[in-house]
Amino acid sequence: MQRAEPQDFGRVLSSMCTEPHPAAREAAERFLATNPGDPGTYQTVSNLERQAVELLGEMTGLGDPAGYVTSGGTEANIQAVRIARNRAETADPNVVVPDSAHFSFSKAAEMLDVELRRVPTVDYRADVEAMADAIDDDTVAVVGVAGTTEYGHVDPIPALADLAQSADALMHVDAAFGGFYLPFTDFAWHFGHAEIDTMTIDPHKVGQAAVPAGGFLARSSDLLDELAIDTPYLESRSQVTLTGTRSGAGVASAVAAMEALWPDGYRQQYHTSMDNAEWLADALEDRGYTVVGPELPLLAADVSLSLIEQLRERGWRVTKTGAGEMRVVCMPHVTRSMLRSFVADLDWY
Amino acid sequence: MQRAEPQDFGRVLSSMCTEPHPAAREAAERFLATNPGDPGTYQTVSNLERQAVELLGEMTGLGDPAGYVTSGGTEANIQAVRIARNRAETADPNVVVPDSAHFSFSKAAEMLDVELRRVPTVDYRADVEAMADAIDDDTVAVVGVAGTTEYGHVDPIPALADLAQSADALMHVDAAFGGFYLPFTDFAWHFGHAEIDTMTIDPHKVGQAAVPAGGFLARSSDLLDELAIDTPYLESRSQVTLTGTRSGAGVASAVAAMEALWPDGYRQQYHTSMDNAEWLADALEDRGYTVVGPELPLLAADVSLSLIEQLRERGWRVTKTGAGEMRVVCMPHVTRSMLRSFVADLDWY
Repeated sequence: MQRAEPQDFGRVLSSMCTEPHPAAREAAERFLATNPGDPGTYQTVSNLERQAVELLGEMTGLGDPAGYVTSGGTEANIQAVRIARNRAETADPNVVVPDSAHFSFSKAAEMLDVELRRVPTVDYRADVEAMADAIDDDTVAVVGVAGTTEYGHVDPIPALADLAQSADALMHVDAAFGGFYLPFTDFAWHFGHAEIDTMTIDPHKVGQAAVPAGGFLARSSDLLDELAIDTPYLESRSQVTLTGTRSGAGVASAVAAMEALWPDGYRQQYHTSMDNAEWLADALEDRGYTVVGPELPLLAADVSLSLIEQLRERGWRVTKTGAGEMRVVCMPHVTRSMLRSFVADLDWY
Repeated sequence: MQRAEPQDFGRVLSSMCTEPHPAAREAAERFLATNPGDPGTYQTVSNLERQAVELLGEMTGLGDPAGYVTSGGTEANIQAVRIARNRAETADPNVVVPDSAHFSFSKAAEMLDVELRRVPTVDYRADVEAMADAIDDDTVAVVGVAGTTEYGHVDPIPALADLAQSADALMHVDAAFGGFYLPFTDFAWHFGHAEIDTMTIDPHKVGQAAVPAGGFLARSSDLLDELAIDTPYLESRSQVTLTGTRSGAGVASAVAAMEALWPDGYRQQYHTSMDNAEWLADALEDRGYTVVGPELPLLAADVSLSLIEQLRERGWRVTKTGAGEMRVVCMPHVTRSMLRSFVADLDWY
């Protein structure tokens, strides 16, 4: 068996995954051989999943949360669209999303045979008026992003929720990346701030749990009932998850990470990561680059493609936005000294 | 953090999960913080995934296999139905499956808006004539099960593949449970035996990998192209997987388990588990029960519900079939002494 490569996250600026918190790693290893998809056999991990959902509810202003630990943000986004489609009456459903929405919504639309209406953003955020224009009688869901994948921007969630409510559509918030930073900001983004129905919020990203530990939350369990499939041979009568066998490691590590870090550890992480992102933005602007962000600890800059390639050759893992900008995600493993070294390499060319 | 419960698999007769092989556990722990969904960042685990698919191809008579490591059998079954739907011309697609097919096909049909035609089985196997009668011009896939979830039976795969071919439908084999036992039997079940298009075969069940490590195989990569969704900000241009971020632990542990056990370790495991299942079947028949199986190491017996409840109270994890029989899965962790102790408890009541 080969060694893991990258060996560590020392040059990873591209990923929304990070090194799990030590408590999360320990829990993942302990619960490696358990399956929350079979609560009749694996009771403890099934209870832990309930605890994970309660903790996520606490972070998102949801008193009596329904939901479960998903394989990741993609599953949670698919499930939101599936609920919206299933509970609606129309034979020709559409979902209205800002153009910044993650490609998992394209996947969901293709799978679920729902029309996806991607509406151009303004200043990297959902354009409320244009979204309103895109909504019609067949709109079954409106999506807002609280921390976009490419630029880390936060949509005007309450205004979008108002649109959804007027259209009698489901309001879904994708906080897969932002959800563990946003409790320490002034943004209005969660169930306590607006009439949101469902949310994606991933412990295995900024929450520092081990993969796979995404999160799907719903304001009421009625919404989850739209997903229920009969399960003849299990003790439970039906299953709402998209997958069957699921990772107990992910569930246990999500609880361990949140118990260790919520709220103080995550608050400190937010400030550290945000300071780092702002430091990098300043350093790039000083060098004449145009920088987008950081609104959350994620930024993009118009570094040339050839320079991006050279940085990659030095081992830096950076990605490009769809528009071709260099994109840097300041995850918990990204330290100031790592960024200093990155900027030094940038200067070298 | 609580202890994992069950602490070990000493009384688990209900699950298709098992204790990972030591090499698989070690690999899962090493690759815990990697994501094969992002090959631009995590190259080694991406190469390991290719290796996993090659090994699965070797087990299933497929020279140049396409496919990937899924979150589990459910994802693989959904993807097969999705390919079938997407490549077909009909606006009203249906999928013909034996009634013994796993409930993930119901999930797939609901999600993908495909009609599911469940055809009653004969002697716990697909009824080829009745399946033929259920097929029409709108049939996009025919499914055979190589090791049913409830009874462990193997469908007549070549005859079903002939039906699929006549109907110009995709032929999918669900060998999620059976796939790691079947290479050591005389059944005709794999790509080398019949014109199969796609297959589900799960390393995290009998293959002794860590969850999540399911397997999806396709005879050609053209089939996978039906699943491709554009990915703007990743190095790869498109993504065929159902989930986005995926578990490097599962992928690495699948390779480690297969390298350690294929073929000799799995062969030995098959014989040991089959002997155990036959021993238990004899013991139950001696006590007057009617036993179904074992065709693979899985059996069902008409033990009364109240007795099942009493065994559960003694800590035995057993499940019931849809018909109410007691169901015992002889996974690698199920030993003869465990079964002796189980039968002794059965005799005690």
